[in-house]
Amino acid sequence: MTKQQRDTIDQMLRHGTLNLGGEVEEQRGIFADMMSSIPLPDDVLTEVRNLGEVPVVTITVDGSNSSGTILYFHGGAYALGTAALSAGLASQLARRTGARAVSVDFALAPERPYPAAVHDAVAAYRALLDDGVRASDIALAGESSGGGLALAATLAILSTGLPCPAAIYVASPWADLTTSGESTTTKAVVDPSVTPHGLRRRANDYAPGHDLADGRLSPVFADLTGFPPLLIQVGGNEVLLDDATRLAARAAGDGVAVTLDVTPDVPHVFVGFAGMLDEADHALSTAGQFIRTHLAAPES
Amino acid sequence: MTKQQRDTIDQMLRHGTLNLGGEVEEQRGIFADMMSSIPLPDDVLTEVRNLGEVPVVTITVDGSNSSGTILYFHGGAYALGTAALSAGLASQLARRTGARAVSVDFALAPERPYPAAVHDAVAAYRALLDDGVRASDIALAGESSGGGLALAATLAILSTGLPCPAAIYVASPWADLTTSGESTTTKAVVDPSVTPHGLRRRANDYAPGHDLADGRLSPVFADLTGFPPLLIQVGGNEVLLDDATRLAARAAGDGVAVTLDVTPDVPHVFVGFAGMLDEADHALSTAGQFIRTHLAAPES
Repeated sequence: MTKQQRDTIDQMLRHGTLNLGGEVEEQRGIFADMMSSIPLPDDVLTEVRNLGEVPVVTITVDGSNSSGTILYFHGGAYALGTAALSAGLASQLARRTGARAVSVDFALAPERPYPAAVHDAVAAYRALLDDGVRASDIALAGESSGGGLALAATLAILSTGLPCPAAIYVASPWADLTTSGESTTTKAVVDPSVTPHGLRRRANDYAPGHDLADGRLSPVFADLTGFPPLLIQVGGNEVLLDDATRLAARAAGDGVAVTLDVTPDVPHVFVGFAGMLDEADHALSTAGQFIRTHLAAPES
Repeated sequence: MTKQQRDTIDQMLRHGTLNLGGEVEEQRGIFADMMSSIPLPDDVLTEVRNLGEVPVVTITVDGSNSSGTILYFHGGAYALGTAALSAGLASQLARRTGARAVSVDFALAPERPYPAAVHDAVAAYRALLDDGVRASDIALAGESSGGGLALAATLAILSTGLPCPAAIYVASPWADLTTSGESTTTKAVVDPSVTPHGLRRRANDYAPGHDLADGRLSPVFADLTGFPPLLIQVGGNEVLLDDATRLAARAAGDGVAVTLDVTPDVPHVFVGFAGMLDEADHALSTAGQFIRTHLAAPES
């Protein structure tokens, strides 16, 4: 079945109207339609609230039984998407861990460029700590640009001396805003959804006037010393494949407990297709096990 | 406990008399003493026999219950070690999978240089198939140079049109005989056992007159298309760290289902310290789960 599943999803993405490098206002609507096309399961509960000054959506699955919190950052190239639109994927992590997910409505570009999103991410994390949640009970997670934001937030958390989260899980992270990975060219034909052109336009929207090779924007160039255990999942059919492999190499060199998990023949953020793609369910099981293990670990 | 465990092992390795780049005859004895210092558990059964023309040691754990076979390649930089001396680590895989391990006494350099070891590895694999073992019931595995040999054997298996094994597990693989990884220099101080000088001497013993950048000698430079699922485990305190990270990147780019699992602050082939080092037991559990999953999968 899985070959047919993969082909179906590939064709769906190729024939969709999302254009990552298109006009933001139009693409936001298309992205919203795409992300909301799969309804949330009936047992998923969402609640809109504020965490500090930052709007978030809290996502729980009926019967969840953990004290853990997954602070989640949605995808959309820092310009598209909302916390609520990524509730499906966040709920898959909640379901597999028993934890609640808190999906952050961080600042979007071009209206509110870098470093506003990082500030929002850290503010939400700090507000969790202020609420009495232990850092050892928090995992950061994110998809695509949200993965990059989870990493950038961790750099900011470490540099400000806040206690470190227990773990980080990133799915198909956008971790190099300079678009310098080899896979930018070698995987362009097989990637059904992400284009180097689109990435470049969104990077310039996100950080106009900044050096995109700054590690705070492009964590593949950052010093990741002190990072908690990190799981990186990525598909083989991604121009962002090398963001994942170089992030893993960098983390390994910097003494981080890192796992890179590559699933061939699947597209960007393939874990978003749980229930439609066996590889997504398998990868999410791995991610769930990773988060569970580290949220349950004794405080160090 | 684990910090103390790590420090103890680091000191033991630093003060040991093994010199990877020393004279082969002397180092073989030292390596044998080191590898045999931990006795095999009482429930491990070993049997010396031939597989085709190749001497092997079959390793089973009392009560094992799987039809799977782990074809195992020992470490020792292609010059030191024997199948029997690595029975401890091979038995850890057997124990965690229920499979039998078949550890191969392949040709050693400098007496029998490349490609003799690869020929022996493929001959042993072919003999398993001739015995009626299905390729889908065979995983290849190896430590250090044995990991490199498992990869080189897979390249040869694919190029000769033999059916592909179900999976490959490599621990701290030596996969670049040109010693060109950044970690060759950046990790030299923290690596308590492996030196770039030692690697270079053994590489020249193994493949005199050959281009060490040939993918059949250095799989980080090979086309890995068609490889089965691959798990790579490595320690953070290794000059060979970048052999692992570059192998993972290469496999990912070539469409392989690859997992890279990096454990910080532990040395080369840290999985050999099961029972003495919590990280070793944890990593072996992961390896066992990986092998079990793929040996149990339906034939494709």
